[in-house]
Amino acid sequence: MALGRLIIDSGERSANLRYASGFSTPDDFIWFEAGGVRGVVMSSLEYNRAKSFASPGVAVFSDDEFGGPNRLDVIKNIAKQWYLDGFIVPENFPLLLADKIRGCGLTVQAEEKNFFPEREFKTESEVEKITRSLRAAEAGCRRAFEVLREADISSEKTLLWNGVPLTSELLRFEIDSTMMKHGMLATGTICAGGFQGSQPHNTGSGVLYADMPIVMDIFPRSAENGYWGDLTRTVVKGKPSSVVKKAYEAVLEARETAKKLIAPGANPKDIHNAAVRVLEKYGFYTGKNESGDYGFFHGLGHGVGLDIHEAPRLSYRVTEPLSKGIVVTVEPGLYYPEWGGIRLEDIVYLDNSGKARCLTEIEDFLIV
Amino acid sequence: MALGRLIIDSGERSANLRYASGFSTPDDFIWFEAGGVRGVVMSSLEYNRAKSFASPGVAVFSDDEFGGPNRLDVIKNIAKQWYLDGFIVPENFPLLLADKIRGCGLTVQAEEKNFFPEREFKTESEVEKITRSLRAAEAGCRRAFEVLREADISSEKTLLWNGVPLTSELLRFEIDSTMMKHGMLATGTICAGGFQGSQPHNTGSGVLYADMPIVMDIFPRSAENGYWGDLTRTVVKGKPSSVVKKAYEAVLEARETAKKLIAPGANPKDIHNAAVRVLEKYGFYTGKNESGDYGFFHGLGHGVGLDIHEAPRLSYRVTEPLSKGIVVTVEPGLYYPEWGGIRLEDIVYLDNSGKARCLTEIEDFLIV
Repeated sequence: MALGRLIIDSGERSANLRYASGFSTPDDFIWFEAGGVRGVVMSSLEYNRAKSFASPGVAVFSDDEFGGPNRLDVIKNIAKQWYLDGFIVPENFPLLLADKIRGCGLTVQAEEKNFFPEREFKTESEVEKITRSLRAAEAGCRRAFEVLREADISSEKTLLWNGVPLTSELLRFEIDSTMMKHGMLATGTICAGGFQGSQPHNTGSGVLYADMPIVMDIFPRSAENGYWGDLTRTVVKGKPSSVVKKAYEAVLEARETAKKLIAPGANPKDIHNAAVRVLEKYGFYTGKNESGDYGFFHGLGHGVGLDIHEAPRLSYRVTEPLSKGIVVTVEPGLYYPEWGGIRLEDIVYLDNSGKARCLTEIEDFLIV
Repeated sequence: MALGRLIIDSGERSANLRYASGFSTPDDFIWFEAGGVRGVVMSSLEYNRAKSFASPGVAVFSDDEFGGPNRLDVIKNIAKQWYLDGFIVPENFPLLLADKIRGCGLTVQAEEKNFFPEREFKTESEVEKITRSLRAAEAGCRRAFEVLREADISSEKTLLWNGVPLTSELLRFEIDSTMMKHGMLATGTICAGGFQGSQPHNTGSGVLYADMPIVMDIFPRSAENGYWGDLTRTVVKGKPSSVVKKAYEAVLEARETAKKLIAPGANPKDIHNAAVRVLEKYGFYTGKNESGDYGFFHGLGHGVGLDIHEAPRLSYRVTEPLSKGIVVTVEPGLYYPEWGGIRLEDIVYLDNSGKARCLTEIEDFLIV
């Protein structure tokens, strides 16, 4: 059976499409591979821009060449022109369109695995782009350190900066606007203090307090090339409690222990569990009670590239050995509603000689 | 046949999911409706946050209650518990999972139309949220006017601001950082001068020039509530050519003419064509030559809400009459590679009394 390959999505949403085409659009367009041709099919609105930005080797077609703007017509005409029986598509291909294509007698087969498995293994140029986004994250983080150092502590233990309450929103603005100067998009920067920090995805809101950990998870995306950086630091303005100090040491040691285990052939589950053992050595256990999960209840890390979360995953569920060329975060954390959260995240590149290189340069410290 | 309703997506990507659940997450989660229950199924990581932020009437379940983190298990268990034969899903439901659910003997039927048709008709509270995002866009735009007024013109006709070249990137930074102070995310602001402005989706790069139109299309999204604003203004620093002046007048008259036609029962195709006729009256025709499309070659407008582009569309392809409650952009434009582009965009709300209210307040002018 002759099957082509097909993606329909927007470049902004689909890292696969951006990887395949070399550019990004707000609206959906079609990428296909058939009979040795890799091409994109663009509307009038995007045709000229696609011509300017498409990767070498990607042919740019106007939808007029395949029967107009109706996507089903275009797909039928591609199949006809290259004598295809159907297409292999990414797992998230839209169902309604798939059913319609099938209704025309063509096969549509969703890929079980990654559509471009090679995305997991970064070229030097990709590593360089990720590093640039990471440097922007570090610049944002340094700006946050600066703001926190300049801040005063009120008699109610709230933070004040330039005479106004220092909120999560204000700190985020200082981080994000710094990153924007580096050409980054920032859409979910976490600045979560105290209890909010105990919910790993709580972005944080309201005034920040002294003596409590502030989790800053900073993940900018390059507006130009779409590659992400990812960085987390946790700091306290003022005096951390002894449990926070101990948790910080535990998380830092867990991260450094895990980083040393990243090597070709290493098992992600083993690396995750090694981090868990360090946390337990310090007395921090993971579990669940009436108020939810506590301890360390997320994966240790994930690949970073054109997606912020991509292959490979470092988790207790994953046993497929690591290979050269991956770029992964290592980000253990501890979360307890009683005192908040601590998370420390670096990025490691397993280079083509098999050496693990930490791409993150910014320092670690607890008290800012 | 007993069918539930099912969405699997991330709140950041899926406006339907955000509409249904009331919150947003970076990772995928499940929303369902079955036997009168509307619920979300969350991982440990998001459970507590979902509890805090879910809309009234949305039950928050942990994935443990449906057999653990495997999505297929959760879906099978939901079907079992509510005696369902399957699910109706949004048109973009992921194909691989749909095929697997079907493989378990359950029906999966992709909705042809909008999954929540009621999203097209805004409540006063939604209009208020869109207006707030629009006000942030206007604040960003005013900042751009200010920067352009402060700019100097070099002997090579490039713009200088505070002694440095004024680029698209720098102008965008000034707009976006202003909007961020209003709690907005800005991810694709267009500041496109000269030839770049003739490509409607070119975001613009490099130094800006005097005497040429600069298209600024500004569409922030509220970080808090997810509603978008949308605004376009086009200005010239210096002296516009006579064709640019005429094109500006034509686009402005086309927009105002179209806005007056927005009413309950009006036909989008007729409104679009009325705008085209105004442009033609000024001598601006639409067509295609060897360098691509020229004239007015995109739709007149689109609904705005939790998606930046949503129902209803104002286009020559759409004949379904407009209803009360819609919020739509009206944004005619003219694009010619020889001199660039002009686009002017307002937002109109067709309120429940049937009156069209322009939500956009910022002024129109060509020479800044």
